[in-house]
Amino acid sequence: MAKPKKQPRPKAETPKGFRDYFGAEVTERGDMLAKIASVYHRYGFEALESSAVETVEALGKFLPDVDRPNEGVFAWQEADDEGRGDWLALRYDLTAPLARVYAQHRNDLPTPYRRFAMGPVWRNEKPGPGRFRQFYQCDADTVGAPSVAADAEICAMLADTLEEVGIPRGDYLIRVNNRKVLNGVLEAMGLEDDTQKDAVLRTIDKFDKVGEAGVRELLGAGRKDQSGAFIDGVGLTPEQAEPVLAFLTSKGTDNAATLANLRAAVGEAAIGAEGVDELSEIANLLDAQGYGPDRIVIDPSVVRGLGYYTGPVFEAELTFEITDEKGRPRQFGSVAGGGRYDDLVKRFTGQAVPATGVSIGVDRLLAALRATGRVGGQAEGPVVVTVMDRARMADYQAMVARLRQAGIRAEVYLGNPKNFGNQLKYADRRGSPAAVIAGSDEFERGVVQIKDLVLGAQIAETATLDEWKERPSQFECTLYDMVERVRAIVDGEA
Amino acid sequence: MAKPKKQPRPKAETPKGFRDYFGAEVTERGDMLAKIASVYHRYGFEALESSAVETVEALGKFLPDVDRPNEGVFAWQEADDEGRGDWLALRYDLTAPLARVYAQHRNDLPTPYRRFAMGPVWRNEKPGPGRFRQFYQCDADTVGAPSVAADAEICAMLADTLEEVGIPRGDYLIRVNNRKVLNGVLEAMGLEDDTQKDAVLRTIDKFDKVGEAGVRELLGAGRKDQSGAFIDGVGLTPEQAEPVLAFLTSKGTDNAATLANLRAAVGEAAIGAEGVDELSEIANLLDAQGYGPDRIVIDPSVVRGLGYYTGPVFEAELTFEITDEKGRPRQFGSVAGGGRYDDLVKRFTGQAVPATGVSIGVDRLLAALRATGRVGGQAEGPVVVTVMDRARMADYQAMVARLRQAGIRAEVYLGNPKNFGNQLKYADRRGSPAAVIAGSDEFERGVVQIKDLVLGAQIAETATLDEWKERPSQFECTLYDMVERVRAIVDGEA
Repeated sequence: MAKPKKQPRPKAETPKGFRDYFGAEVTERGDMLAKIASVYHRYGFEALESSAVETVEALGKFLPDVDRPNEGVFAWQEADDEGRGDWLALRYDLTAPLARVYAQHRNDLPTPYRRFAMGPVWRNEKPGPGRFRQFYQCDADTVGAPSVAADAEICAMLADTLEEVGIPRGDYLIRVNNRKVLNGVLEAMGLEDDTQKDAVLRTIDKFDKVGEAGVRELLGAGRKDQSGAFIDGVGLTPEQAEPVLAFLTSKGTDNAATLANLRAAVGEAAIGAEGVDELSEIANLLDAQGYGPDRIVIDPSVVRGLGYYTGPVFEAELTFEITDEKGRPRQFGSVAGGGRYDDLVKRFTGQAVPATGVSIGVDRLLAALRATGRVGGQAEGPVVVTVMDRARMADYQAMVARLRQAGIRAEVYLGNPKNFGNQLKYADRRGSPAAVIAGSDEFERGVVQIKDLVLGAQIAETATLDEWKERPSQFECTLYDMVERVRAIVDGEA
Repeated sequence: MAKPKKQPRPKAETPKGFRDYFGAEVTERGDMLAKIASVYHRYGFEALESSAVETVEALGKFLPDVDRPNEGVFAWQEADDEGRGDWLALRYDLTAPLARVYAQHRNDLPTPYRRFAMGPVWRNEKPGPGRFRQFYQCDADTVGAPSVAADAEICAMLADTLEEVGIPRGDYLIRVNNRKVLNGVLEAMGLEDDTQKDAVLRTIDKFDKVGEAGVRELLGAGRKDQSGAFIDGVGLTPEQAEPVLAFLTSKGTDNAATLANLRAAVGEAAIGAEGVDELSEIANLLDAQGYGPDRIVIDPSVVRGLGYYTGPVFEAELTFEITDEKGRPRQFGSVAGGGRYDDLVKRFTGQAVPATGVSIGVDRLLAALRATGRVGGQAEGPVVVTVMDRARMADYQAMVARLRQAGIRAEVYLGNPKNFGNQLKYADRRGSPAAVIAGSDEFERGVVQIKDLVLGAQIAETATLDEWKERPSQFECTLYDMVERVRAIVDGEA
């Protein structure tokens, strides 16, 4: 008889560019998002959880074609009898779904509509080190409020949010710029050609990387990059380039000085004056709420997103230093950004609806909290009740139930109890603060042995023999006292 | 000149079978899941968030074919240069990813591995009323623990979880059965033919719907269903069918009586005796932890999943009555179920690994909490600071900042302030407990008007004119007192 052909075993692997999150990675992020949500809620924002799947038509940005329907997004065609099903895709951000939701439900939603959303988004991009194809976003947006009071509110909320999750005042700065001021500068320069304007915008975008001198070269003849390759410039004369550079470097010693510099940079351009007025109003509104320039400041060197947004633009930076992978100190940098974009739902309804919002880089903010020891570090493993006598399982279960009922995280060892050393190794691997041990002798006497694993580890590392004897990491107590003695260890009071 | 062809506007619609969740729908679910997670954590379970996307190969159950790659799951092929990219799919449950994760990371995970997972899953099925293609699951599983102590632990955890989210003791019952007992019954009946065994299993699965008499008919010659159509039976004689019915109806007045009935039903079959022993041990372990049969009970009439699981099976039912859509009282029914399945990772590694777990029906449990008023009801809208004088925006912002700093949910009206009536309509729509009103007169005198919208609505509904005058729903107070007066309204103490 022919042997049935053996199916090859499937590979147990996450798809390329995806990853799994374990234990504290999940709960720490969840705790941070819950804190953020509490601030957003206090500001009157409502939670929204839209479906992860959208029609490609509604997402809009990425249109499928027959050859490569997956360009940029994960997309597939709905099966139907005629093979003409809708193209569906996973959302690539939380803004496109907001536009769809607002257009779809606008008659049932309040105006203005303040909403926040947190959840995974998906990008069909080439994965790289630290670059994943599924990651979290956390957005708050106000739809239908034309006033810059909405922008100021979002900046204030962002400051409160950073403090709520554990970034102390002084360790962050929210910087505010305005696209209209830049438009005024471009107008004042007499740049009418859209191609040239776009080239200037793209160059400004590199200000963070190449600095003032680099932008000056790139607006002019061009410059050699680090690899020695020559990057063509926009071709402006030094005089033509000057207003852009004046704009980028117009930050003064206080908001009033910055605003005066900006007024000079935009000259007669009406749109520029409007932009400066908006920045001035934002500064006033924030000042009235107690948010001074130590927390939120007008700073025209903020360029990220200046090409995308239509009005105020803001970015939150963490100003403390961390050590990078090469051991050099550097500022932590940006953890959130946003701005005003006034065409949110026009694609759907034909009507322009003003909107402004912010997006927090969830992974970056969490990394910042971890880097400064504000999240993580402490082991949160369960107390492990070991099994010396398999026939006594009901007694061990009763012990663990007592611990749990007292609010103490605890478990009975449920692996093969034969090798006791394995049970202590397991407790170690779980980061357990304590192990509870009871054999027939202990049960007869109504006592348990408690092993303080935290102290045990400390002693093993640092103690002299005398200290070791003096502070035994294992002790006996009555069953009656067990919960309180374990609690003392868990609370760090042993 | 030819007019450029106008692009049709995209439709603002969720894809068929998907939906959006707004405000309290999101936060109430989040709060419930956080409570569940806290219990799971206390039991020593670790959070796991696997990627939403898996390779179809790893998911295993649904293999793509060229014609209908989407059968049951949402799947697509990765683009690569040769058109031979991996097939990827959205996970359809949280168990298949657990199997993949455990097989992939087993050397880094503790054994046993207790994990919980909560999140959306996706099914590519025909949507129906109340049936969506994206929904939440919430699972807890213990991998690598062969002992039924692991099953008992999950039952105890499920009881604690239901009480933690707000189902009081007495309003739920967790019923436990065991597939091995049924196997013993089938053996005792002398059923050797697998086709006939499968037919009996499928018939038992209908016990919930058709009851004892119905199962009796279906095991025999067959029966007419409600529509009058005749359903063929398995063809057993009444004597042959008897042990199965004895099994299904063996629940006695207490666990001891039930276990005695089961021992009789399985006769000499070794696998059946093993199953009864396991149930007996589960009852003992739970008893030792204080979980009596008022909370967790041995009940062989639990048949859901009996075909899928390999050992103990459990189901949590809510026992209180609700009124169904036709106005008839009925028991709320099942909100969670699970059991032991011992082949979790064998597909990947060739090695059988024992596992047991439970899945909570998130939407059903939330519906139960809503139906009994334990979630929802209270409006949680923000206090609205209205805008009488647009030029005073900084003052309104300062007022709202005070409220927020005091922990009160509040917002300034950011729509067009021209029509004051619209502002109050907005507050109404937002479910605001109070509106704060200040015009130039108030600012001059350092006071504000506070409108108690909750009281206002009550008065409008029920009060006589005298009561109306006596308890004005609008009053004046100093700016200084504003926060405390608003707080009294929000806290329901006004």
